[in-house]
Order: sequence, then C-alpha cells, then structure tokens
Amino acid sequence: MNPTLAQIPGSLIRAINALKRPGDIDLCLGEPTLRPDPRPFEAALAWVRANGCPYSANAGDPVLRAVIAARYAYPGLDRAENVCVTVGSQEALFLALKTVCDPARDEVLIVGPSYPAYAKICQMEGIASREVGLDPADGFRPDAARVLAAVGPQTRLVLLATPANPTGRVWPDVELDALAVGLRARGEGRPYVLVDEVYRELCYVEPPPRGFATRYDRTLVANSLSKSHALTGLRLGWLLAPAEIVPTVVKAHQFVATAASTHSQQVALAIFQDAVPLDVHRPHYAARLAELSALLDAHGLTYAAPEGTFFCMVRLPAHLAHDSVAAAHALLAAQRVVTVPGAAFGAEGWLRLSWVAAPAQLATGIERLATYFLASR
Amino acid sequence: MNPTLAQIPGSLIRAINALKRPGDIDLCLGEPTLRPDPRPFEAALAWVRANGCPYSANAGDPVLRAVIAARYAYPGLDRAENVCVTVGSQEALFLALKTVCDPARDEVLIVGPSYPAYAKICQMEGIASREVGLDPADGFRPDAARVLAAVGPQTRLVLLATPANPTGRVWPDVELDALAVGLRARGEGRPYVLVDEVYRELCYVEPPPRGFATRYDRTLVANSLSKSHALTGLRLGWLLAPAEIVPTVVKAHQFVATAASTHSQQVALAIFQDAVPLDVHRPHYAARLAELSALLDAHGLTYAAPEGTFFCMVRLPAHLAHDSVAAAHALLAAQRVVTVPGAAFGAEGWLRLSWVAAPAQLATGIERLATYFLASR
Repeated sequence: MNPTLAQIPGSLIRAINALKRPGDIDLCLGEPTLRPDPRPFEAALAWVRANGCPYSANAGDPVLRAVIAARYAYPGLDRAENVCVTVGSQEALFLALKTVCDPARDEVLIVGPSYPAYAKICQMEGIASREVGLDPADGFRPDAARVLAAVGPQTRLVLLATPANPTGRVWPDVELDALAVGLRARGEGRPYVLVDEVYRELCYVEPPPRGFATRYDRTLVANSLSKSHALTGLRLGWLLAPAEIVPTVVKAHQFVATAASTHSQQVALAIFQDAVPLDVHRPHYAARLAELSALLDAHGLTYAAPEGTFFCMVRLPAHLAHDSVAAAHALLAAQRVVTVPGAAFGAEGWLRLSWVAAPAQLATGIERLATYFLASR
Repeated sequence: MNPTLAQIPGSLIRAINALKRPGDIDLCLGEPTLRPDPRPFEAALAWVRANGCPYSANAGDPVLRAVIAARYAYPGLDRAENVCVTVGSQEALFLALKTVCDPARDEVLIVGPSYPAYAKICQMEGIASREVGLDPADGFRPDAARVLAAVGPQTRLVLLATPANPTGRVWPDVELDALAVGLRARGEGRPYVLVDEVYRELCYVEPPPRGFATRYDRTLVANSLSKSHALTGLRLGWLLAPAEIVPTVVKAHQFVATAASTHSQQVALAIFQDAVPLDVHRPHYAARLAELSALLDAHGLTYAAPEGTFFCMVRLPAHLAHDSVAAAHALLAAQRVVTVPGAAFGAEGWLRLSWVAAPAQLATGIERLATYFLASR
C-alpha cells in the first residue's frame, strides 16, 4: 500500500458524525438544508434527451468555461482559457496544489484555522505544508501582517478561504490589499495564492469585499455551486488560474477524472445563464445568522461573530478548553448535540457549530450547549 | 510547477483529433454514438425533486454499492464494502494505482498495447511502470505465459484490460486460468491484478469468459456505465477491491473528489435496478462488427479480429509500418480519415479504428484507408 496515504489520520469530523444517533441535534452538518431549485435539472434533462450524455472536453464545456470566466471577471482570469471545470471545489483544490507545487522543494502556507483537507491533500501529495494561525484571542480576525510574516523562502503557495470555514470570518478589503502589497513586494519569487471561495455567495458583510484575484496576479480561485445553491451532490466546481497553469491542471484532471459530469455541467449552465443571482440563498442564511447570534448572546456564550458561511466558532469555557475532542464527545453523550471539535481545524479550545438546522433544533441545541458548559464545571 | 506532471507527454490521440475538420470521416472516437435511454435520467430527476442533491457518502450511496457488488458477485468482492463509487472508471484506475502501490519500491506491469493513461497515471504518481507487450505477429493474442515471464520481484500490480482497448481482444478462460495459477504460485509476494472491465458488456465471444476476479484473490476491477450505456459524460464508475484496500481508496477519493455526483449515482441505480440487462447495446455493436469485418476483408486489409470493444487494430503495410504517427497524419491529409496511430498505445505499425461511426461513413472510411495504403507506395 501507499504508505503516505495510509498515514493520513482519519477525520475528526467523521469520527463524531459516526456516533450520531436518531433524535440527536445535528449542529455538525457541512451542507445546506435548503432544497435546490429543480428547474436547472429539468433543463439538463431536456439537454440529455436532445444530445445524449457524451464526454465534455476535459477542461469542461467551452460555453460553461466562458460563462464562469465572465461572471467573476477577475482580471487575468476572465477568459474561458482560465477555467477548468472540476468535480466540485474539492478537485479544484487538489488539482491546484498538485499542479503548482514541486514536492521536492515547495511549501504551502495554510491560513488557519482551516478546512482539514487542505493539509491532508498536501500530505497525500508529499508537499510540505505549514499553518499560520489567525489569532483566537482576536476572534480569528483576518490579518495580512500575520500571514506575510509567516511566508518563507520555500513558500510557493498561500492557501486561504474567505468567507472561511470554520471561523465564518471574511477577509476585508483593507487586509486583502495589505496582503497583495506585501506579496507583490517579494518580486519574482512571490508565491501564488489559492483562494477557496466556496462560501463566496454566503457573505453577510455589506458591501462584500472584492475578490483577492482583483488585486494580485498570481491568484488561483476554487469555487463551486455546492454551498450557494444547496448542490453539494452535484460535484460541479471550477478552478480559475493564470493561463500558463491551466493546461497542466487539465492534464492532471484528465488522468484523475477525465472531465466533470456532462449533466452537472448542463445544470450549472442553466444556473449561470438564468437571471436569478448567484447569492439567491443569502437572505435565508442571513436571517438564520441573526437568530443564532440572538441565541448565543441570550445564553452568554462567547463566539467569533460569523461574517459568512453557515458555521460559527463557539469558545469552550476554561475548564473544557484544553481538549475540544473530549468536550464535543462529552456534549454529545450528555446532551445529544453533535458539534465539531475545534481541534479538527487546528483550533483547540473551540467548537464549530453549523447553523443550518431547523430553528427549533438550533434553539434547543444552543440551550443544551449552555447547559453542558455550566453542568460540566 | 510540479515537474513530474509537466513532463508527461501530450496525447497523440488528442493531437490528431485536434486536426479534424468538418466533413472528415472520424474513425478516432472513443465513445458510443448510440443515444442513452433517458428514463434513468427521469428517475434521477424525480429523486432530486424529492430529496434535493446532497452529498452521498464518500464511498457512494450504500444501496448502489450493494447493488453493484451483488450484480458482479465476484468472490471476495461481492459486498457493498468492496465497492467505491468513482468519477468514471478513470478515477477508479487512478485510485487503485495510487492506493496499492508504494512509489518508493513498487512497479506496475502493464499488459500492452494499452490505454495510454495507464502509464501516464503511473508517471504522474511517481510509480515505476513497465509494459509487457502481447505479440503483434499473433494479433495481440492474450498470453498468460508472456505476462508471467515478465513479472519481476518489484511487480506489485499487473494491469490488464479485457476486452482490451485498443486491440479488441478478449482474454479467454484458459489464459485467465493460466495467469491465476502462475500468479498464485508466487505465494505471499504475489502481485495484485487490476482488471479494466470498462468494455465488459461489449464482448462478442460466446459465452463470454468469466471475470478474472472469479479466479484470483488479489484482484481489483474498474468499470463504469460509459461504454455499455453510451454514458461517457455521466462520470459514474466503480472500483471493486478487497475489503482491506477499500478504506484507503475511499480516503484518497475523498481528497480528490469528495464523492461521485449524487445525481449520476441515481441514474446508475435506476439502470442497475431495472430489468434491462447491462449488455443491452451489445447486439447493435455485434452487427456493426460484422459489417466492419466484411469491409476490411473486401479491401484485403490485415487486422486483429476484434472480440470486444468498438475498436479494431489495422496493420499498416510494410512501407508505412515504421511510423504510425506519420501514416495517420498523412492519411488524414490525403483522405480526410481520422484514425489513431498505434504508437499512442505502444503498438507501432498499426492504426486503431473506432467503428461506431455511421455505416456509410465507416464504408467510405475503410475504402479511403485502402486507397491510401495503395497510393502511398
């Protein structure tokens, strides 16, 4: 067996999720509970009736590539040639890391706390990775100076998410500008930046900051319709990348998956070509966030106020903060509430809640969380 | 950039395909021209209307996994736990090679001529690979003794396809038995065998041989609905593997793609649960093969008689046999017929024809091929 693969530790998220029993309150979910609009699927069915279901080009349907490039219109990433249509943003992240980095010498700098797969993909591919953690005492506030100070001579790629899972924080314009200026100052050896924008449409900051790709030339962007459109099972994402990188990305994509599903690409095309804005689900989540904040405040819980995503980091009280895995499991055992230990994201002392559960479930869940924090003293 | 990836040569198939002009006769196609049945897509749409489009489990829908395992019923691979649902058989091949082999010491032995991606996946993953070629003088006849003689001390995995692309040859029971006996004799150090069965349902030998997995314990099987059901764009395949391997396969699958499309899995479930046999398209192809053979014979062309797939290897005449790439390009320029040079598969001196084109196109294509062979002398 491949020893590198065998050594990758199992998922802490999956471990607690596997213990979930019927009737438990699930604040662990990483996917929308909204239902997707069936109309794009009807359009895709009509297309299959007329055209069958042949391979698309490896890089994706040329019209879809052009529509995606034009929709985001990031300078230097705004042509069909800048797009590889992928099997969700997961494959986009995998391909970006695999293509841009030379395992023999390059290092990836991951802005944490972060989605655990970033570091695990690096591990699987034999690429060195290092985390620069945002300050928990400052609510994981995006901080360009902190990231810039951590960039080293081997740093080939900086990986950040905005809005960020698990913190819900959004990088503001001023910090994105500072990051771009600081990286540009590194001249020829400046690293690439891979931005995970999968929560882009679930941003509650007004106005939403402009994408980092508008400020810095060596930017790659991973995104999908999974979170914005409640289509996690569509497995349809894309990587935007500078034109000199895309052919190599497509080469790896071809050997890994050939292409994304032609049907899923037709669903995506129907969504992008429709007049409905991409952030159609945002008002729903914004309303839920207001409820969540009221609940957390009412119970006197400490948390990093979410600015995006559908996650929230809640601080463990001092007597539990040393072991978030134990706390999450004890909470599940005592109160039947499923959360994710912050340790899963490199953020010991916190729990990640997802707030996509039904309102009554969420209210009960937060109440039980507060009860557990008190009762466990 | 990842230098390993950058060094993988471009595709000879794609190179000639890119030169195709409207009006050319296309005998290059690697996908069915039949239309798929739309009813499984209607069933999948109804499912999405009722359930949305959430993530499936990483390894695939548990019911689909069970149905696939039961349908093939290969001993030791016949439980849901033996199945990982993948993004086409391409991802199944990728995951099998990535999981089973240790790049530091293992070697893959590829039975050739073969689908070019086998060796290129190995190259991308830093796994040593070596080809054992079946004898062109014997029409690429499957030959267990030849393969067994090539197995070395580092050979961790033997990779073969039956029915085979590009030769159309089918491994008969007697040779599969001999291969299993020979490999078993190697005891504890015996290699795994990865069988690409993507053309399984397009086998014109009666009765079709039993799968290699019925004879040998360390077998993995890659397959999909792409070729049997004209669903290349569905990107729905699977890997059958011994239970001790599957969890590591699923781990890599998770980091590469999360899961296959939930919608595509519902299409597959509708197909597997229907009473229509999986080889529903076989009679169509068998009839086309009879036409092809008559055409090739009428023009006095030499070829390896296909027993499966929708490909045929035609031998280049002596004056062209030294350079199949040049011959294929000259044929395209002179006669506007697109074929694939045998060199793309490690079979210099041959051209691969696909015979899924419309009958009139196929007849004209073969006629022009014969004309070119004569005229180029």
